Amino acid sequence: MNRPQIKAETYIERVKKMQELARANGYDVIIIAADEAEPANVRYFTGYVPVFETTAIMIPAEGEATLLIGPESEALTKKTSRIANYEKLLEFRETSDPEYPDLKYSTFAELIAAFKNIKRIGIIGANVMTVQVYLGILEGANGAEICRCDNLLRSMRMIKTPEEIEVMRYTAQIAQRGFESAIGNIAPGMTEHQVIAEFVHAIMKEGAECTGFPFWCVSGSNSNQAIGKSSYKQIEKNEIIQITMGASYEGYVASFGRPISFGKPSDAKAYELLSVGLEANKLTHKYLAPGIKACEIVEKVHGYVRDAGYGEYIVYGPGHGTGMMECEYPFIESTSDYIIQPGMTFAVDTFLGGPDFGMRYEDAAAVTETGELQLSRAQQEIIIL
Amino acid sequence: MNRPQIKAETYIERVKKMQELARANGYDVIIIAADEAEPANVRYFTGYVPVFETTAIMIPAEGEATLLIGPESEALTKKTSRIANYEKLLEFRETSDPEYPDLKYSTFAELIAAFKNIKRIGIIGANVMTVQVYLGILEGANGAEICRCDNLLRSMRMIKTPEEIEVMRYTAQIAQRGFESAIGNIAPGMTEHQVIAEFVHAIMKEGAECTGFPFWCVSGSNSNQAIGKSSYKQIEKNEIIQITMGASYEGYVASFGRPISFGKPSDAKAYELLSVGLEANKLTHKYLAPGIKACEIVEKVHGYVRDAGYGEYIVYGPGHGTGMMECEYPFIESTSDYIIQPGMTFAVDTFLGGPDFGMRYEDAAAVTETGELQLSRAQQEIIIL
Repeated sequence: MNRPQIKAETYIERVKKMQELARANGYDVIIIAADEAEPANVRYFTGYVPVFETTAIMIPAEGEATLLIGPESEALTKKTSRIANYEKLLEFRETSDPEYPDLKYSTFAELIAAFKNIKRIGIIGANVMTVQVYLGILEGANGAEICRCDNLLRSMRMIKTPEEIEVMRYTAQIAQRGFESAIGNIAPGMTEHQVIAEFVHAIMKEGAECTGFPFWCVSGSNSNQAIGKSSYKQIEKNEIIQITMGASYEGYVASFGRPISFGKPSDAKAYELLSVGLEANKLTHKYLAPGIKACEIVEKVHGYVRDAGYGEYIVYGPGHGTGMMECEYPFIESTSDYIIQPGMTFAVDTFLGGPDFGMRYEDAAAVTETGELQLSRAQQEIIIL
Repeated sequence: MNRPQIKAETYIERVKKMQELARANGYDVIIIAADEAEPANVRYFTGYVPVFETTAIMIPAEGEATLLIGPESEALTKKTSRIANYEKLLEFRETSDPEYPDLKYSTFAELIAAFKNIKRIGIIGANVMTVQVYLGILEGANGAEICRCDNLLRSMRMIKTPEEIEVMRYTAQIAQRGFESAIGNIAPGMTEHQVIAEFVHAIMKEGAECTGFPFWCVSGSNSNQAIGKSSYKQIEKNEIIQITMGASYEGYVASFGRPISFGKPSDAKAYELLSVGLEANKLTHKYLAPGIKACEIVEKVHGYVRDAGYGEYIVYGPGHGTGMMECEYPFIESTSDYIIQPGMTFAVDTFLGGPDFGMRYEDAAAVTETGELQLSRAQQEIIIL
């Protein structure tokens, strides 16, 4: 099998690194949350991805890490987790709050009490941790201080290793091949839902493990959605059909976005928007390089878009970090004053959307010592079928 | 178009009903959370489903309800929400915590202050609401008491209307047709991921809007996962291949589970498990009827399984409520002392899993005045391909 895989040792090293950061920053234990829609925080350390239920990993400054799971995921945990310890807690049960009359489970109070002298607990992922889990931690904290410390995990994940970049390149290539294969199977008259079915099918056949995020096809006046959902609208000739897809493999996600059209868009402004968007996309790839201050890319790319008359179509910056989350730190926004560095990976995400329609070109890219390595790049053009 | 759809008025009536419940139970405002993986709580009132971001609906005892969304979902909201009012709040931004340097947004403090004399705030969905949203509510509550009141929404959703049951029947039929179509496209040698791609593709072609939950194919020794994930293992002849799929349509989910095998399973115990599981499944359908105490079904079905020698393979009860969530109240467990009523809808979910392998038969069913209406039932047999 030639699939690149994250090595077992890498998971162990990541836990150790987080323990070092915990000690250096005065945390006695760190609890990191994840869920079905965004499993990255926990998968990074364990390989584990929850379904229906939620999850967390508890990493003490000294001692063994423990994966925290819901009542129904024991067999899944045994098959997929890279760390040996796990505990079942009711707080991670699925959304419907099932009763488990015969279940034996642990509590946060027991788990926290098992470590001696816990004075400061760090939590990571407050935007994915459920209130139920948070209340469980509060109840079990036994007076310890609770602080958010997402910055610790961000600092670990922001610069990718060569091992990670190789997995991301492989993932982006699956997305690209899937896109190229699927566009041969779509035709006017299909619903947006049916169009997306072809892209999902194609990336899975090409070797993806899942989509990584809910893909969408939005056409005509639907295309202006920055975050979109497919509908039962049938795609038509001569309109913008926005495909936002990608692939997920080995826990990494690569997005791939292209507007397509069966015949040239009949609205001249729609065609102009595609031209402006494509040029903005190419400019972002051109300026993305080590040593540049991130906000300077925004200034140049958005300057071009505004000069072209589409300033009102700008919704956010021209790119964002990508990796285990489709969108993760660091962002490329007007306030981003950090310096682009080798090992950073970005989704170059050119979205322009106005009241009438919108479009997105998107590819994953890695910053190298000398410039930018585009991880996918097929059909970076105005695609008229 | 012959697709049954939930009427626009139904959404309005649901909001009104929740306002009545708020008044009757002494809540001044109720905040109900949902996310990408489990959108049901908010979709029920609005039709809206978030992607990447999270969401909530704020329903005051008197006055207009407001949909609360993240910064990037405005166009999606305008196209899909059935209620007119919405507000963007940073608390609902996506997991990666993007910065939105130029965004205008509202705060919980402003929204809560706009109502006069808020003394008691109810929250629903603490197992899907993020800590970030909860802390925003706490900060904006201005001294009001905050209570969990999931029971109010459960009481509304537990008995389905004929309109809902018609949508669920349509959804279950999509799942059944998708299953029947997809099994023609799979063969030994495909990976579990590739097998699932066929089922996803088939239900979308048949008219689903999405999967509703992440489908899985787990084969051989992988089949013992109650909650499972597909892997890169290739499916083989003469082993249990467990397909857990379904369909989602108009916000309702219908599961459809079948074990299949290319040739008879070579392990005699595996074949016996399939026979026991199928019989347990048929018994559950037989006993599910109005007027029965739910725990009596468990007693009879689990009694049969234990007598057959597979007591150790029981993980949970023989069914659970289903509707907008694949799994929702009420459950059918040994402690369930409620009476089965017409309008309740269940997933008859026969899962048996041991150390060696497992299997699931699952179909959606509605309880009628006279008995049980199975919403899907194709191939309720031992399927040897």
